[in-house]
Amino acid sequence: MEPLSEINFKLVEHKKESNNTKETTRIEVFSDGVFAIAITLLVLELIQTLHSQTSDGLLKIFSDHWQSFLAFSIGFITILVCWINHHVAFEYIKKVDTNLMWINGLLLFVVTLTPFPTAVLAGYLQKESGTALAIFGFNYILISVAADSICTYAYNHHLIEEEHRKYYYSYKKIYRYAIFYTVIVFFICFVSVVIPVFLYIILFAAFAAPKKSASTLNKIRLARKKDNLKH
Amino acid sequence: MEPLSEINFKLVEHKKESNNTKETTRIEVFSDGVFAIAITLLVLELIQTLHSQTSDGLLKIFSDHWQSFLAFSIGFITILVCWINHHVAFEYIKKVDTNLMWINGLLLFVVTLTPFPTAVLAGYLQKESGTALAIFGFNYILISVAADSICTYAYNHHLIEEEHRKYYYSYKKIYRYAIFYTVIVFFICFVSVVIPVFLYIILFAAFAAPKKSASTLNKIRLARKKDNLKH
Amino acid sequence: MEPLSEINFKLVEHKKESNNTKETTRIEVFSDGVFAIAITLLVLELIQTLHSQTSDGLLKIFSDHWQSFLAFSIGFITILVCWINHHVAFEYIKKVDTNLMWINGLLLFVVTLTPFPTAVLAGYLQKESGTALAIFGFNYILISVAADSICTYAYNHHLIEEEHRKYYYSYKKIYRYAIFYTVIVFFICFVSVVIPVFLYIILFAAFAAPKKSASTLNKIRLARKKDNLKH
Amino acid sequence: MEPLSEINFKLVEHKKESNNTKETTRIEVFSDGVFAIAITLLVLELIQTLHSQTSDGLLKIFSDHWQSFLAFSIGFITILVCWINHHVAFEYIKKVDTNLMWINGLLLFVVTLTPFPTAVLAGYLQKESGTALAIFGFNYILISVAADSICTYAYNHHLIEEEHRKYYYSYKKIYRYAIFYTVIVFFICFVSVVIPVFLYIILFAAFAAPKKSASTLNKIRLARKKDNLKH
Repeated sequence: MEPLSEINFKLVEHKKESNNTKETTRIEVFSDGVFAIAITLLVLELIQTLHSQTSDGLLKIFSDHWQSFLAFSIGFITILVCWINHHVAFEYIKKVDTNLMWINGLLLFVVTLTPFPTAVLAGYLQKESGTALAIFGFNYILISVAADSICTYAYNHHLIEEEHRKYYYSYKKIYRYAIFYTVIVFFICFVSVVIPVFLYIILFAAFAAPKKSASTLNKIRLARKKDNLKH
Repeated sequence: MEPLSEINFKLVEHKKESNNTKETTRIEVFSDGVFAIAITLLVLELIQTLHSQTSDGLLKIFSDHWQSFLAFSIGFITILVCWINHHVAFEYIKKVDTNLMWINGLLLFVVTLTPFPTAVLAGYLQKESGTALAIFGFNYILISVAADSICTYAYNHHLIEEEHRKYYYSYKKIYRYAIFYTVIVFFICFVSVVIPVFLYIILFAAFAAPKKSASTLNKIRLARKKDNLKH
Repeated sequence: MEPLSEINFKLVEHKKESNNTKETTRIEVFSDGVFAIAITLLVLELIQTLHSQTSDGLLKIFSDHWQSFLAFSIGFITILVCWINHHVAFEYIKKVDTNLMWINGLLLFVVTLTPFPTAVLAGYLQKESGTALAIFGFNYILISVAADSICTYAYNHHLIEEEHRKYYYSYKKIYRYAIFYTVIVFFICFVSVVIPVFLYIILFAAFAAPKKSASTLNKIRLARKKDNLKH
Repeated sequence: MEPLSEINFKLVEHKKESNNTKETTRIEVFSDGVFAIAITLLVLELIQTLHSQTSDGLLKIFSDHWQSFLAFSIGFITILVCWINHHVAFEYIKKVDTNLMWINGLLLFVVTLTPFPTAVLAGYLQKESGTALAIFGFNYILISVAADSICTYAYNHHLIEEEHRKYYYSYKKIYRYAIFYTVIVFFICFVSVVIPVFLYIILFAAFAAPKKSASTLNKIRLARKKDNLKH
């Protein structure tokens, strides 16, 4: 009877695991829904440009509203990057509690809000470029804080699969750094326009592939530790 | 052949369970979709503020429309609290029938409606604060009634996992109390503005962590029972 | 080794089944998304009423726009009934092919369209009640045709679990009847307003619980068969 | 103990597989959400037509805005065809990496954008038919490029189930051809209106059932190979 009981045990464990999976699945489905809608609502602002001037030719409308198309692309990439990072962060989370739901709710709050700074960017990029950029930059600070909170909470409360804990540590580190980075760039927005745009592109590039960034960071840290040991 | 047939039995049972899971999953996916969209549509009202006055500066628009931002936050938290409570309620429901779909539909009706009282709040908080607040308060009554109906129906028709039945009882109790609470606050709205706001914050706090509230309620009831036995 | 190979066989079968499940799951998730969004977009028309007259008091706006609230409720119930019926129809479908995707797409087309006749109803219920009602009625014809097509196709191409085939037959019958019913009511719309409203309420009642309606229909048919045998 | 360890092995493998499934599921849920929302937002433009002229009769509005209804149908079918093809492409993908998420993001970008050219079509089909058609045609080029990128990347990086690799090759081929096709039709738009419309209908017909088109293409290629061997 030994072998059977072990299978029994495995089936029971499988059920318990699938219960946890169900919970994490539901928070992911809800979040995916919010990401998907926020990213799709952006197009409504584009359509709006068609209604504002109906007497003009099509090409004139396009050239008059190039900021709307630019803002649409920036808003789209912002939310997509958020989603990709959210995806990676939740890949290793095996359990969800009410606190994590609230912290995740904070992130969704900012994601839901994103079409607003996008619309600000479309309408005020030429008139008040500094303020418009700073508002979008403030959005990035909020996103970084929310992402850092999710990872730190999941890490500290052992909601992550034990085998990936070490990896998750360096993963969560990159969001901590992102907070400092976005705060600094936010203040630069009030002085310059070109520099923050350049710095935001670097930010995008780093978080476009969060797994790679995390492992690069890990290598740097290990190399530094070795260096310290030598001296 | 005994051991095998038991495995067979387990696999068959696993299939039956997974059929039930599929059913509950679909009602959850649909509900999650409605929650996610309702919560994201709120931003459209914020964007609207940008279109109303295009000649003003950005900061002036922000200070003129602080009610819109406040209403957005309140609407967001309202729907998020609903979702968290919906999540907990359905965590223990193992089967779904047509009646439950309709009762769940009642809740979704109110959730779908929520962006409307939010827009009322944004537009009339200063002009007709009492009426605006009462309309939002009426929304809370409807939510409580719908949540109570779901839990009561699921409890009475044994749609809950048997092992969690006792826990679910005290869980469903908190929604019953919420009905009385929201009805009373609704009438206070016509007399005062400060008191209902304060009372709604308490309501939010209680339902932000429904599991904790339910277990606190349970402890109070047990303590009272003990007291009664003593006397 | 016999027992093991049987377990093997079961695991392989389980995998194949889970592949089919994945396919049906995805068409359901997409459909659920469309249902959820269509049902939530209805509120945008309600919010619109707030923007049309900003000088009026809140209660005046509400009493002026009672048709919008009525239309919102009708639109909501219509889409919810569709979703419940869609849910039941797909519960027994075990496989999905490209043709079924297209037929399902036809249903989604009508569901997506539904907010439009709802807005027509809200705006023209008083001015052109007959035409407005007929447009909504035309929507019901399209829904019936799409629902009947899904069930007939799934039935004829053996996409249904074999054990539920008999039940599915009477289930599919009720959509066939619905086509005739909605076509007749559509033409009555041009003559009267009260009668079609009354007939649509009966229609709603019948499809609010499709499983019950199907089994009632089944009993009637069996009773009639028996009667025929006697004579 | 041999048999048991094999079961163990199978259960472990089942878990690993289900992890991969979870990942692909999430990208599918997110994509399905985007498809579902983009397809449902199209109706907002239809509702807009009701608000533009409130003094006219219903039937006059309908006959005045037949382009809006036509554009709605075209936009709907476009996104539905995209979804069906996306569904088939991901059916055989068993693993997802960050790069594929970005390439899929490119497709979603175009899908999200689609309501915009649809609105252009509705508003400018009569005034500037050539330009309006070319803008919609440009959308089709982008879709083809994105679809081809997904399939080519998945094929080259062995993200497809090994047993379907051969089939996937001819499947990916049809998207490569679609790029050339749509580019050519795009340029014809500047010369004629009737011919591109006719050519787009053929395009729709080919991608309405991508599996059939792929296998037809496969047969043609095999026949040609045989022919070559003979000569």
